[in-house]
Amino acid sequence: MTNQTMNLFEKHQNTLSTAVKALAERTYYTPYPENPKAYAEDADAKAKAWISTTMNNDFKGLKQTGETAWHGEEISPFLQVGVGVKYPIFSVDTLINNANTAQKSWSKTNANTRAGILIETLEKISARFFDIAYATMHTTGQAYMMSFQASGPHANDRALEAIAAGYQELTRYPEQVEWVKNFGKFDLKVNKDFKPVAKGVGLVIGCSTFPIWNTVPGLYATLITGNTCIVKPHPKAILPIAIVIEEIQNVLAENGFDANIVQLAADSSANPITKQLAENNTIKMVDFTGSSEFGNYVESLPKLTFTEKAGVNSMILDSVNDLQPVLANIAFSASLYSGQMCTAPQNIFVSKNGVETANGLVSYDDVVKGIAAAITGLVDNPKAGPGTLGAIQAEATYKRTNEAKNLGGNLVLDTKAIKNEEFADARIATPVVIEVNKSQKDIYNRECFGPVLFIVKTDSVEDSLELCKALVMEKGALTCGAYTTNQATKEMIAEEMNEAFVPVTFNFTGAGFINSHAAFSDFHLTGGNPAGNASFTNAEFVSKRFVWVGNRYM
Amino acid sequence: MTNQTMNLFEKHQNTLSTAVKALAERTYYTPYPENPKAYAEDADAKAKAWISTTMNNDFKGLKQTGETAWHGEEISPFLQVGVGVKYPIFSVDTLINNANTAQKSWSKTNANTRAGILIETLEKISARFFDIAYATMHTTGQAYMMSFQASGPHANDRALEAIAAGYQELTRYPEQVEWVKNFGKFDLKVNKDFKPVAKGVGLVIGCSTFPIWNTVPGLYATLITGNTCIVKPHPKAILPIAIVIEEIQNVLAENGFDANIVQLAADSSANPITKQLAENNTIKMVDFTGSSEFGNYVESLPKLTFTEKAGVNSMILDSVNDLQPVLANIAFSASLYSGQMCTAPQNIFVSKNGVETANGLVSYDDVVKGIAAAITGLVDNPKAGPGTLGAIQAEATYKRTNEAKNLGGNLVLDTKAIKNEEFADARIATPVVIEVNKSQKDIYNRECFGPVLFIVKTDSVEDSLELCKALVMEKGALTCGAYTTNQATKEMIAEEMNEAFVPVTFNFTGAGFINSHAAFSDFHLTGGNPAGNASFTNAEFVSKRFVWVGNRYM
Repeated sequence: MTNQTMNLFEKHQNTLSTAVKALAERTYYTPYPENPKAYAEDADAKAKAWISTTMNNDFKGLKQTGETAWHGEEISPFLQVGVGVKYPIFSVDTLINNANTAQKSWSKTNANTRAGILIETLEKISARFFDIAYATMHTTGQAYMMSFQASGPHANDRALEAIAAGYQELTRYPEQVEWVKNFGKFDLKVNKDFKPVAKGVGLVIGCSTFPIWNTVPGLYATLITGNTCIVKPHPKAILPIAIVIEEIQNVLAENGFDANIVQLAADSSANPITKQLAENNTIKMVDFTGSSEFGNYVESLPKLTFTEKAGVNSMILDSVNDLQPVLANIAFSASLYSGQMCTAPQNIFVSKNGVETANGLVSYDDVVKGIAAAITGLVDNPKAGPGTLGAIQAEATYKRTNEAKNLGGNLVLDTKAIKNEEFADARIATPVVIEVNKSQKDIYNRECFGPVLFIVKTDSVEDSLELCKALVMEKGALTCGAYTTNQATKEMIAEEMNEAFVPVTFNFTGAGFINSHAAFSDFHLTGGNPAGNASFTNAEFVSKRFVWVGNRYM
Repeated sequence: MTNQTMNLFEKHQNTLSTAVKALAERTYYTPYPENPKAYAEDADAKAKAWISTTMNNDFKGLKQTGETAWHGEEISPFLQVGVGVKYPIFSVDTLINNANTAQKSWSKTNANTRAGILIETLEKISARFFDIAYATMHTTGQAYMMSFQASGPHANDRALEAIAAGYQELTRYPEQVEWVKNFGKFDLKVNKDFKPVAKGVGLVIGCSTFPIWNTVPGLYATLITGNTCIVKPHPKAILPIAIVIEEIQNVLAENGFDANIVQLAADSSANPITKQLAENNTIKMVDFTGSSEFGNYVESLPKLTFTEKAGVNSMILDSVNDLQPVLANIAFSASLYSGQMCTAPQNIFVSKNGVETANGLVSYDDVVKGIAAAITGLVDNPKAGPGTLGAIQAEATYKRTNEAKNLGGNLVLDTKAIKNEEFADARIATPVVIEVNKSQKDIYNRECFGPVLFIVKTDSVEDSLELCKALVMEKGALTCGAYTTNQATKEMIAEEMNEAFVPVTFNFTGAGFINSHAAFSDFHLTGGNPAGNASFTNAEFVSKRFVWVGNRYM
């Protein structure tokens, strides 16, 4: 360690040890406030100015050289015009060669050096949270607050979590030990050292809806374990992660490291390079977030893979104390970022016998009407609707949502546009609610990405659970919500769903939403069901990226 | 937990916590003495009587029922006659159904219950160490002392290591936690629980040379994590592991558990059931020790796999203080169990410039002659030879060894039979030593299983290292030995070989042998090179067998 990197380790040692502790205790922790008001008063105004000058210009912040072209094709879902930023395009050979060169030095650093450097990058990134917020809005369609929180503090939390998990695993064995075996007449003494050896270059493939939040866990897990990383963003959502990589490269260069330890590998829809990169022998591990189809391809590669694919999240509505807060909670979970979160609920299983409440039974039909009314109440509220929904990222999602009524089933509430005062041209679609019979599996037993909610009429809560479990075993899920006041039912749902490796969130109302997964506490994905093989951040998410090797000396 | 299982946990709690501590500190630890003299004076005599009555009889010790036939085809390498023990044969359906039934209850037990039960089984197994020794001798051909140690205390150590590693991973997160997030005006409180959910039924496929040592890590790792296990032994080496399973089933039944939590799945060479079992959907994980060909098939299955395949272990001979102890050490490592250990050296890389010693340079030719002389000195010594060599397990190995002289290269020392006073008919082959040029890769760049040693003449130590590294990157290795008195050379060898995920053992003489991997300290395999994807016992070896699921409650 140089003095400089030693200083960075010492500077961030407290954050690191607090993070390691939080990860083990799984209690609430974040060093990055999620409230924009906690930051400089003029930060937002500066970021607004920044996004204006950034749009329609080349992105010059990277330290990578040797580009063969400049290209960009992002479209703002709020403006429905091109963002106009062009990014340098590099050949696969250039990216691979740079990564191989950088790997030689980075893999020789130790865990302390890397932890210091990497937490420093998070500090620098946090100074860009407002720029990142606008970059996220105008690529993903997330509303301002979500753009700020999900791409800013919450993403930094997940990155820090990966650093902490990595640090803990990298330091779990002594570097050196004297091993002594007594043979009666003499001792056999052997000196041993234990080294975590990096596996090699990683590739992280980003998605269009959460270009930072879903990228940084794999990116930082790859880096903390001594591997270099190529980040291949979705061509429609490059700007947010480009800022992150700019900041990481700056910190690396300032501390005497090869900036190519992390590279941005932008490509175009017309000339995608993802498979070329993923199949390259230099790439030893691939992190992926996106469709199940491409995710299955990634998993089929003969290398280490970490995937987050599609799933179908469900809720089981059995019994409640007070129905209204529950309906409001479901409505918000389904409307937040227009159902484009990987944790958004799609199927609501309700027994034909209705829902027991403290004030008596509410009929099935009234529950269905109540869900629709709660959604309408939320989206039609001009103070809540636009900021909850944001905009639809992709034209295909917009089309799918608007055509959902033709899937079959009974249309309870159609999608519609609402007015966004700030962005008149925003691509908006409120949730469509469709009631289906439990036998209509061809409709609801698959992911229908976007603001589409199916209410599935079942025979009983046991029936709901059986259908829900069978669905997640086949298609996977990131989460499952359940509302029940019955302890035995609660235990039954937890046991059955957990057996399918899906966590259950019970009786959330108020400020608790099924969609939110808190770093240091909630595992994002279990890695055990078809929705993906990774889990942010269990020990394996980092430990698979290096190999323990022990040498012996006499 | 019942009182009975609570008692077992309390009984073994000290052993468990000592094992967990040793695993972290990687210091010397064993609760099972490796010296037969540490056990009852009459234990050996009783075991001799036991093996006499066991041979040529049906093995009735299992609690499994519903067999379709009885079959056995083991041949004693020491007697070269059939062992004559027949084992119950079960249909794949019976095995799978039993495993599924047992899985339901076993997966609901907690880590304490399982740890108590499983350490109790090790205690019961330790009371059978002498029976196991004779069973191992007459199936594997290991000499008495190795049979006792490798299948007895050393295997129990590895089993305990897997239990300890599993216990540590299963208990690394709190079972319940209250998570509190402050929103300024109010606190959001969420109760969470964290559950390690077992992945399902495991299959452990054993090998013919180390039927217990290589089986119990996967078996106990599978069991401690809440999974049931089907053990498919090599048809030529069933008896040792049958005793282990008998003892496990006894402990399970005595404590009110389904004995089918562990099942013996014996088969025959004529009607193998391994692939049927491995491909069955019920089987969620497969542990395998054996050939690379079959191991590659196992790894290609769409399920969790842990493999130990073939590799080519090498030694690099550069410089020494005193050559004689080094030559004696190499001779012993190559002769121990006739080179049938997965950690036995095969290739000795020596520079054409010879070997520097404290007494001056020893020429390459003298080193070659010295290795041959050291082997001859060892095997021709009637007090050391038979007990070191043991017997050749398989006829194919015997044939390969005797035909090695025809591979090409320069025959330095041919294989021969030596006399074993106790077993006149033992299948014995002393190491054959062949000198090859570094260009003769078709000869030495592949595993030649058995007592076959290639001395590879290279241009320099750097050349030796380059050849050795390229070989292990292609073919894999469990270990690498090196002799050098030069610090820079030592670091260079460690760095290069570690980069290929192979550990290096430096300058072992006296009682230290490259072949030995000590539980709680040495990782057996790194999991990072083509010799296998498992590592006994890193955290992943257990953590991959279950899934963390966290539920949230309001």
